[in-house]
Amino acid sequence: MANIIQEYIDKLDKLDVSKMYENDFFLTWEKTDDEIAAVFTVADALRRLRENNISTKIFDSGLGISIFRDNSTRTRFSFASACNLLGLEVQDLDEKKSQVAHGETVRETATMISFMADVIGIRDDMYIGKGNAYMHEVIDSVTQANNDGVLEQKPTLVNLQCDIDHPSQTLADALHIIHEMGGVENLKGKKIAMTWAYSPSYGKPLSVPQGIIGLLTRFGMDVVLAHPEGYEVMEDVVKVAEKNAEEAGGKFTITNDMKEAFKDADVVYPKSWAPYIAMEKRTDLYGKGDFDGIDKLEKELLAQNATHQDWVVDDSMMELTKNGLDTLYMHPLPADIEGVSCEHGEVTAEVFDRARDSLYKEASNKPYVIAAMIFLAKVKDPVAALKALESAGPRKTFK
Amino acid sequence: MANIIQEYIDKLDKLDVSKMYENDFFLTWEKTDDEIAAVFTVADALRRLRENNISTKIFDSGLGISIFRDNSTRTRFSFASACNLLGLEVQDLDEKKSQVAHGETVRETATMISFMADVIGIRDDMYIGKGNAYMHEVIDSVTQANNDGVLEQKPTLVNLQCDIDHPSQTLADALHIIHEMGGVENLKGKKIAMTWAYSPSYGKPLSVPQGIIGLLTRFGMDVVLAHPEGYEVMEDVVKVAEKNAEEAGGKFTITNDMKEAFKDADVVYPKSWAPYIAMEKRTDLYGKGDFDGIDKLEKELLAQNATHQDWVVDDSMMELTKNGLDTLYMHPLPADIEGVSCEHGEVTAEVFDRARDSLYKEASNKPYVIAAMIFLAKVKDPVAALKALESAGPRKTFK
Amino acid sequence: MANIIQEYIDKLDKLDVSKMYENDFFLTWEKTDDEIAAVFTVADALRRLRENNISTKIFDSGLGISIFRDNSTRTRFSFASACNLLGLEVQDLDEKKSQVAHGETVRETATMISFMADVIGIRDDMYIGKGNAYMHEVIDSVTQANNDGVLEQKPTLVNLQCDIDHPSQTLADALHIIHEMGGVENLKGKKIAMTWAYSPSYGKPLSVPQGIIGLLTRFGMDVVLAHPEGYEVMEDVVKVAEKNAEEAGGKFTITNDMKEAFKDADVVYPKSWAPYIAMEKRTDLYGKGDFDGIDKLEKELLAQNATHQDWVVDDSMMELTKNGLDTLYMHPLPADIEGVSCEHGEVTAEVFDRARDSLYKEASNKPYVIAAMIFLAKVKDPVAALKALESAGPRKTFK
Repeated sequence: MANIIQEYIDKLDKLDVSKMYENDFFLTWEKTDDEIAAVFTVADALRRLRENNISTKIFDSGLGISIFRDNSTRTRFSFASACNLLGLEVQDLDEKKSQVAHGETVRETATMISFMADVIGIRDDMYIGKGNAYMHEVIDSVTQANNDGVLEQKPTLVNLQCDIDHPSQTLADALHIIHEMGGVENLKGKKIAMTWAYSPSYGKPLSVPQGIIGLLTRFGMDVVLAHPEGYEVMEDVVKVAEKNAEEAGGKFTITNDMKEAFKDADVVYPKSWAPYIAMEKRTDLYGKGDFDGIDKLEKELLAQNATHQDWVVDDSMMELTKNGLDTLYMHPLPADIEGVSCEHGEVTAEVFDRARDSLYKEASNKPYVIAAMIFLAKVKDPVAALKALESAGPRKTFK
Repeated sequence: MANIIQEYIDKLDKLDVSKMYENDFFLTWEKTDDEIAAVFTVADALRRLRENNISTKIFDSGLGISIFRDNSTRTRFSFASACNLLGLEVQDLDEKKSQVAHGETVRETATMISFMADVIGIRDDMYIGKGNAYMHEVIDSVTQANNDGVLEQKPTLVNLQCDIDHPSQTLADALHIIHEMGGVENLKGKKIAMTWAYSPSYGKPLSVPQGIIGLLTRFGMDVVLAHPEGYEVMEDVVKVAEKNAEEAGGKFTITNDMKEAFKDADVVYPKSWAPYIAMEKRTDLYGKGDFDGIDKLEKELLAQNATHQDWVVDDSMMELTKNGLDTLYMHPLPADIEGVSCEHGEVTAEVFDRARDSLYKEASNKPYVIAAMIFLAKVKDPVAALKALESAGPRKTFK
Repeated sequence: MANIIQEYIDKLDKLDVSKMYENDFFLTWEKTDDEIAAVFTVADALRRLRENNISTKIFDSGLGISIFRDNSTRTRFSFASACNLLGLEVQDLDEKKSQVAHGETVRETATMISFMADVIGIRDDMYIGKGNAYMHEVIDSVTQANNDGVLEQKPTLVNLQCDIDHPSQTLADALHIIHEMGGVENLKGKKIAMTWAYSPSYGKPLSVPQGIIGLLTRFGMDVVLAHPEGYEVMEDVVKVAEKNAEEAGGKFTITNDMKEAFKDADVVYPKSWAPYIAMEKRTDLYGKGDFDGIDKLEKELLAQNATHQDWVVDDSMMELTKNGLDTLYMHPLPADIEGVSCEHGEVTAEVFDRARDSLYKEASNKPYVIAAMIFLAKVKDPVAALKALESAGPRKTFK
């Protein structure tokens, strides 16, 4: 059983991860290619260790703080799993049970919850221009508190979904494609269709489509973003995708034609989201406390959605792709499945059921990706640490 | 301090527990006599170890997932205690904070929360025909996911109360009787009265009376089930009890006369429950979304209950039993105590106060019973594991 | 790195802490001077160890139970941090998710949650005459259960704020003054102004001003309590403060003049609270279920508060103190800051911002103070235990 993670150690050894130490994870495009590769490599190594019943605890004690400003099952459990893998205990800040409502500043709350915090994981994806900004305010606050001698350590941020990006999801997605394609080098030139799809619910975040075009363009893929007119994503992220594609020798195009996107695609990622402009309007209305306006907007958006019920993935759509029904179908879950969770939705049960195992494996990367983000922020020499873990104790004492 | 658990190791060594490994715990009557005996033995051994400040951690990390679809204090803390005893961290699935409401399938949720789960504990006792079925759906899902390579391990199920059985409660109850009687061999021929009792609240689960008659008939006891007409329990469980009694050389009878049941009883277990037929009707109404019908049913049931306020345990009832006021009085708690939590209830304060210590000891078995269920599902050679634990480290480093 | 906590070990070695073992922490004035000094010393030692990446786990497993009957962020996270520091896992009793509403007795709930509990932390500060009494009822119950052989251990109580005292706060406060003054011996003769301040909210607990006058009078300080007429605190605690001051050779005075209190003060602690008499009335109304009466009382109190908006700390007030703008300004947080969380409040933004680092350091003592309370109740020979910890393993395995 010796050297079961040698391949990952060899990979990691060639990567410059020096700036990840004591740093944070906000957006994938703020990270270098080496850093992105390191997340994949450490995630795979931690999984290999756990599969072989080797403990991956690098902490004897310490807290991982979670702040969920939106509902979550998958990401909540992924964060809890990642913390547990590394030896941290999760402490959730439930803003309803706290004194945050007292008008307390973000700076103060952030500091008060961080005395023993090694990690802070935040989901804040509801309002355009708010989530990522909130995360920065939290991290600026604890960095300041650390510099001022108030905190003994600066907790590292893990972005568990903001208004701009959803890095733990998209890195888990990318790692799944890498596993399916047999290596990151095989992604070059492959076509992925990141497309809108119809959903009967409204206001789904834009962080996944934005995160996907901002990440997958780095690997030289032919990335096509498709959506009905009016469902544009943030212009800033489009520019990131364009720049990435150019630098990586890939392609990035936008179309309003779902079939064009699916044509000869190696991977399809159809998923509903709300128009960026509508989400901006909603944020304004929310800021003004105009809840009637929000209700009205919601009705308008649902009516707008309803005119695009033909944006659904069925077998005939899959047949347009490179490998037909066998083409890799992706989704962050839960999906709106026709005849299962809704009458009309993002995908038919046939397509979903065929992809189920693959979708669940895609999701299974998330705890390891989050653990890798924490690992690389908290361990100065990750190669040495992985080597040391390999020769340490078992996770289950008795098999 | 050597060999403090030798007696338990000797017992366990003679039992065939091979099929408990990687298995689940749904209903006691799905387990062999050896398997039931093994739960008692391991529970007692773990308690002895902890009392002697010996750590019983068999996991270095890992999660115990809890899903409570009904309120709980005792069972929630018992499950948390059991997980902590063994080295697992509890992560609760709060369905209100999750995306389960999105119409997500049980299969998907079950898989998504289980990537690092070694155990799943579920309470789902509200609707006849639903709770146990839900548990099976969860376990079928994670078994499938494990077979498909999605999950590295199959989490083991601990039934924390379903519509049919409440095994962690009834095994804790049985273990209490065993301790009080000085050994399981002394239960043979002893009479236990599992009786209905009046409660001002409605809709209490049937899982305890059903679980008790399904379990205690195995030990050759003279089990009498008593309730007013109309308060019948599930017919299937009655058949289990009849079969068990026959095989174990004991007795199982049903009566509508509480006094007849108490007459010469060695143990009494008086507790309110709702009629099975009414609970079935409620489940149907719930399925149709007929909440007016549910309200109406509730009023009918409370009126029906109110005609049986004479089903109360007071000193005069206790005097009918084998040892009078000293006879073992049992309850899963909390009880409806006359003059304490209600005007008319299941038991008078005199009877309850006299039994208090015994009742609390009964309850104290539950964390160890749950820990034993997990232990036997997760450890292939439990005898070797117990031996190894005995010589391992302390729970409190400094006494 | 040897002997990094030698100074604390030397101090602790001279203190009689024998009665803290297996005991509880209700009120600071129930503890001897040695015992108070021991809390400070162990808190500082634990912090030094953690700062040097030395693990302070004294438990391999076990639970720390928290019961919050009022909202909390700081204290909740402080308790969770303290438990984690020592190796205990927090299990929160959420009374809404439990069966406590069934009319269950405190005695029963307390016992049922304590089978694996090493600590119980309780916040119950809402009703005069209730919180401290509730804590005693809980501890009497588990002590009884331990004596009766129901519980293997008696969990130790940590008072996380009651109607009388808030010891984890006031000890953290005192430790901050000690750090700022360069030693407890330097507190003698120093003047501290514990004053009321205006807040737009109503019904703030009296536990902080009461706790402060009951604690700081022990160190020979010149303690001045200032508040508008009608905002008197509990008479019993006033007597404690008077007695303490006399014994320690300090002073304790009460005034209705904020400026008089601030004049030449070395430390100021201005904070809003509700009048004791009004809180008593509120408790009575609550007991009678007179919610209209409570609403009426609330309006009266807010109107009463509003006549005292001049009780605010601004630079001109600070100029009256011994060291002007540099004088130590204290607050348990969150404060009502003018122009930040309210229009009129306890303090101006100028004063607050200048003191921010100091306030956050004050708060950072709380996890260590709570950990010290637990440590001293759970470890028989704390000197030996600290020495042993120093030579044990690291908290973060890889720096």
